[in-house]
Amino acid sequence: MDDDNFIDDTLEWILGGQCSGDNEGFIGDAPRLEKGHETRESLDILLGKAISYNPCSEVLWVRVPKRSGSRERSFGSSLILVLGPELEYKMSYTIKDDEVDIVIAALHSDLTSFMEEWRPIFSRFHIIIVKDPDLADDLKIPGGFNVNVYTKSDLDRFVGFTGAKLHFSGYSCRYFGYLMSRKKYIISVDDDCVPARDDKDLVIDAAAQHITNLSTPATPFFFNTLYDPFRPGTDFVRGYPFSLRNGVACALSCGLWLNLADFDAPTQSLKPKARSSRYVDAVLTVPTQALLPVSGVNIAFDRELIGPSLFPALRLAGEGKLRWETIEDIWCGMCAKVVCDHLGHGVKSGLPYVWRKEGGDAVESLRKEWEGVKLMEEVLPFFQSVRLPRSAVTAEDCVLEIAGMVKERLGSVNPVFGGAADRMVEWIRLWKAVVSESTTSKAV
Amino acid sequence: MDDDNFIDDTLEWILGGQCSGDNEGFIGDAPRLEKGHETRESLDILLGKAISYNPCSEVLWVRVPKRSGSRERSFGSSLILVLGPELEYKMSYTIKDDEVDIVIAALHSDLTSFMEEWRPIFSRFHIIIVKDPDLADDLKIPGGFNVNVYTKSDLDRFVGFTGAKLHFSGYSCRYFGYLMSRKKYIISVDDDCVPARDDKDLVIDAAAQHITNLSTPATPFFFNTLYDPFRPGTDFVRGYPFSLRNGVACALSCGLWLNLADFDAPTQSLKPKARSSRYVDAVLTVPTQALLPVSGVNIAFDRELIGPSLFPALRLAGEGKLRWETIEDIWCGMCAKVVCDHLGHGVKSGLPYVWRKEGGDAVESLRKEWEGVKLMEEVLPFFQSVRLPRSAVTAEDCVLEIAGMVKERLGSVNPVFGGAADRMVEWIRLWKAVVSESTTSKAV
Repeated sequence: MDDDNFIDDTLEWILGGQCSGDNEGFIGDAPRLEKGHETRESLDILLGKAISYNPCSEVLWVRVPKRSGSRERSFGSSLILVLGPELEYKMSYTIKDDEVDIVIAALHSDLTSFMEEWRPIFSRFHIIIVKDPDLADDLKIPGGFNVNVYTKSDLDRFVGFTGAKLHFSGYSCRYFGYLMSRKKYIISVDDDCVPARDDKDLVIDAAAQHITNLSTPATPFFFNTLYDPFRPGTDFVRGYPFSLRNGVACALSCGLWLNLADFDAPTQSLKPKARSSRYVDAVLTVPTQALLPVSGVNIAFDRELIGPSLFPALRLAGEGKLRWETIEDIWCGMCAKVVCDHLGHGVKSGLPYVWRKEGGDAVESLRKEWEGVKLMEEVLPFFQSVRLPRSAVTAEDCVLEIAGMVKERLGSVNPVFGGAADRMVEWIRLWKAVVSESTTSKAV
Repeated sequence: MDDDNFIDDTLEWILGGQCSGDNEGFIGDAPRLEKGHETRESLDILLGKAISYNPCSEVLWVRVPKRSGSRERSFGSSLILVLGPELEYKMSYTIKDDEVDIVIAALHSDLTSFMEEWRPIFSRFHIIIVKDPDLADDLKIPGGFNVNVYTKSDLDRFVGFTGAKLHFSGYSCRYFGYLMSRKKYIISVDDDCVPARDDKDLVIDAAAQHITNLSTPATPFFFNTLYDPFRPGTDFVRGYPFSLRNGVACALSCGLWLNLADFDAPTQSLKPKARSSRYVDAVLTVPTQALLPVSGVNIAFDRELIGPSLFPALRLAGEGKLRWETIEDIWCGMCAKVVCDHLGHGVKSGLPYVWRKEGGDAVESLRKEWEGVKLMEEVLPFFQSVRLPRSAVTAEDCVLEIAGMVKERLGSVNPVFGGAADRMVEWIRLWKAVVSESTTSKAV
């Protein structure tokens, strides 16, 4: 196929029938550009015809020869094609199932009903289950899953081997799974959650939605009022600069909860009967520099990009086995958001939902929870003030920088912060060791 | 009633039955605190019993004497009550109908069907209609509304009287209505929009939702993953500092659109058949420092707080009578957001939706629209870089500061920006004159 024919056919394929105008026209049918490989090839060839390319706005202008003849429609004497960003931002990549680990922290020994509920969704992925070392009974895990289980003996061996000064108990045990994973992506859901149903009463595939969130770009530099512009049926609204429509890699996907919301103990105590029933059908990028309380209940992330920034560092004195008795995920979520902002990655919040089952007695937790609630008054202003140096170019670098700032600015406020700073440093030591070891042999 | 009885009764009233714990307990039933006046009284008396009040976190700790006896439940030896922020943030104020102006820019002369569709929603408010001065035919407005109409002769008289160098034609004519309004709040909807229906097929009262958005606080300093925490059925999620739960005044409410979305001409041309059909049941505060493309199609704002920051300053050479041929609202929306961030007000986006009817031929608009699309590449980075001095304490101050920066930094980039800067200064001159005049006599 010669170049002219190729362009002709490509235009035919791209255009669909959107072209108009006698002399110049705007062409392109964005949804059809998603076909991927062929599109990239088409662009490469079309690039040879480019009349201008603005590296700032990344808008590509292409002028191609007039077409006419047997075809029913004729293009004018020339055609101006603006598809740089349109093309680019639609070219989201595909995540393969074997690039994903599902990581489950087992705080309950009988995972039978949990695993059965998730079977249609999780069974196509490799699963890592980390048993809370404080849990006495043996785990019950139904068959038919591709699963690695880590228990107290693995944790003890690891701690003995590495001299790790980290506690992997309670909700923190999941982080051991993050450390052991060899996959690019992690999806993690609490073991008191089951698949939710959407507003059409269809079961939500939370894994598929997290993968969509991570495989399409995030847009942290300008808010799109119609939410996720990469979702079919929507787009960037008027006024959204084309130069920003490529977006950036999404490194963290924060899902939500139906039924029992993830409130703190005071709120849960105030509203014991409150249930979250509103299904908000949206995903959005949390803007750069804006922080959010990342819940560990239902998340997914790109382990290669920001894995080191999710760790078990902040441990409350009265930490228990209920979500509202912890803020370890809030703490490392702040850290992850600051790291994403610094490295230019995106964080999304919204879909997918999971269904959180009933928890314990929130009023009983209040005495413990006050510690976490009070600490947040220090934690947020601190993270809002963090500015990382340009020399920090990896998530590991960033976490070490933040640990130093925690020690310096928060260490004297409360000993819990000094401990957190130490464990952040410790975590990075382990992460580097495990990741480097994993390149030569199997860790642990 | 003595104090003890009052507290007893208050606790009875507040508690509902949530209290527990032998020694200390957390009490309060937030939804019941909404009763308002009585609650404030209760708090005043309870304040006398406060053991600590943190003015930074605004958390109130109250210790009250042990209760026991005839009641079935007993409070322990003391009770710790944390209801400062809970109380405060539920005490949103009420907006009365006579504090609101509906402002309509009439770009079509026959408003009959438009007004009839909106009658159930708009008829309880005072309405200002500004007729596009380029429109030749007389306006048709059905009876039964409390309406003030401004036409070309009013605009000419005003321009002659004040020497105004502003153009109030096309979509910009609505700003004349903003200037003439004497109300605290403005709601403005394009005349090609009709009431939309929600996901339960109920007609959406866009005015009521805008009023809800403006009368409940915004939370720009930390993102709440469950969206608007003031909406019944939701709240602040775990990790949200109590000190930020009061929120700040919401000054701008940006609604959305079903059917025809507010895309730019290129996007609309690319997707001529695309219709926005997804009803996202959420309102959120756009975080501080994050900018958004504010559409003028469906907005409401607190005129006293930020009225001067919404103006007809940026006028494209090829500006026409279709939304996608303008960016005047995007420009002043950036300005308004920067002003809100500086003055500590909030901006919300999301509900309510309106139904946008079919527009014109987007492909025909492309030649004009490129100007706006290209300008946005300069506009966004500029507004992202704006930092206002502390001396700017009103919206007027802020706009004048921004106008100076526009002149200095963008004036040489494109003459359109120099013109915009001049018109911003001119607008503030008029705003001050009209507002000061309105205190002594009726303007115009």
